[in-house]
Amino acid sequence: MGEVKVIKIGESVFAANDDIADRTRERLRKNGTFFINVMSAPGSGKTTLLIKLINILKEKYRIGVLDVDIESSLDAVKVADATGVLSIQINNGGLCHIDADMAARALEQADIDGLDILILENIGNLVCPAEFDVGSHKKIMLTSVPEGDDKPLKYPLMFQVSDAVIINKTDTLGYFDYDFDAAKDRILALNPGARIFCVSAKTGEGVEEIAKWIEEQTEAL
Amino acid sequence: MGEVKVIKIGESVFAANDDIADRTRERLRKNGTFFINVMSAPGSGKTTLLIKLINILKEKYRIGVLDVDIESSLDAVKVADATGVLSIQINNGGLCHIDADMAARALEQADIDGLDILILENIGNLVCPAEFDVGSHKKIMLTSVPEGDDKPLKYPLMFQVSDAVIINKTDTLGYFDYDFDAAKDRILALNPGARIFCVSAKTGEGVEEIAKWIEEQTEAL
Repeated sequence: MGEVKVIKIGESVFAANDDIADRTRERLRKNGTFFINVMSAPGSGKTTLLIKLINILKEKYRIGVLDVDIESSLDAVKVADATGVLSIQINNGGLCHIDADMAARALEQADIDGLDILILENIGNLVCPAEFDVGSHKKIMLTSVPEGDDKPLKYPLMFQVSDAVIINKTDTLGYFDYDFDAAKDRILALNPGARIFCVSAKTGEGVEEIAKWIEEQTEAL
Repeated sequence: MGEVKVIKIGESVFAANDDIADRTRERLRKNGTFFINVMSAPGSGKTTLLIKLINILKEKYRIGVLDVDIESSLDAVKVADATGVLSIQINNGGLCHIDADMAARALEQADIDGLDILILENIGNLVCPAEFDVGSHKKIMLTSVPEGDDKPLKYPLMFQVSDAVIINKTDTLGYFDYDFDAAKDRILALNPGARIFCVSAKTGEGVEEIAKWIEEQTEAL
């Protein structure tokens, strides 16, 4: 009887991705650059939050931003205009995510030497980016009040892989039914170690607390 | 010199998908079932809108709903409870989209004979579902006021492939800066034939117009 060779394509793709991610993570750690991967659904307020965070953190740290989009440089331009920090747009050619190899190639082309904090603003998608480790030290995800408190039940992997979950747009609570306790219970059931923040990127409420957490992570690198 | 065989994997995948989609479309047309693919970002209000639409349309038509999610049967249960129509949950095993083959296999298992309208509530994702024709006669997408008016610039393919674009959550305009004229111009620049509706699925404002459009499409099948 001949030998049957089983090729597990899914596994090998992710294993190769994870090897590259590990190399990126280690290289950035040695360089003293804390690398954060920020993910969310479209329109959750990533760019608005990042601008607020960077304007707090840039007093103390050198910061760079990598903005991933299918097309357009809207967010990179917004961040650069509002913060003055290094802002690089990556157009990923229509893909639904960025993987470790794409991130590593982008980092090779970017002048990131000497940065204390590097932030990847991932493409707006709660599914695919959750599957790809890009080599970050920490993963942050945003979910927002208008999206509803059932999102952890519907996109569990994203909530599982994130070190911090930010519930954004708390200023719109008067307009939407959103049960914070239910949302928190659902997040912690999936990911008991998740740090949860409730903020309004628009008004700035709660943003200082996230900045403090990023500062702690940067110092602990 | 040997012959070089070029395999275009991307093309063949989509060509195979489109063949299956065409067969589904034709089979449903012969059966008199109008098939709509409804897409959006997470939390745009698909389920709330569909419940309102179905409760209008079910007076005249036999309707069925296919709900696609990574996990959970939340939306299928919500639709069934609120409308009483046939509601089927498809759990797609963690994928970011549903393709024509998955849709065809789901339809084989579902009892859809005699339906006038079949609605697929796709997974919440503005990227991947835009690429896969599932065999529907028309594609509808929702975008919502809290997501911002720049979404056509950032997720152009979804806006290009949709026959109708619904701007939802117009009742939240007091809370968000949203430029309807800019949004409409951006949508029509990508897709000049798109039918655009502005609605609040929550209050019901504008929903009758969409129901009328679906009725016209159903009659014209």
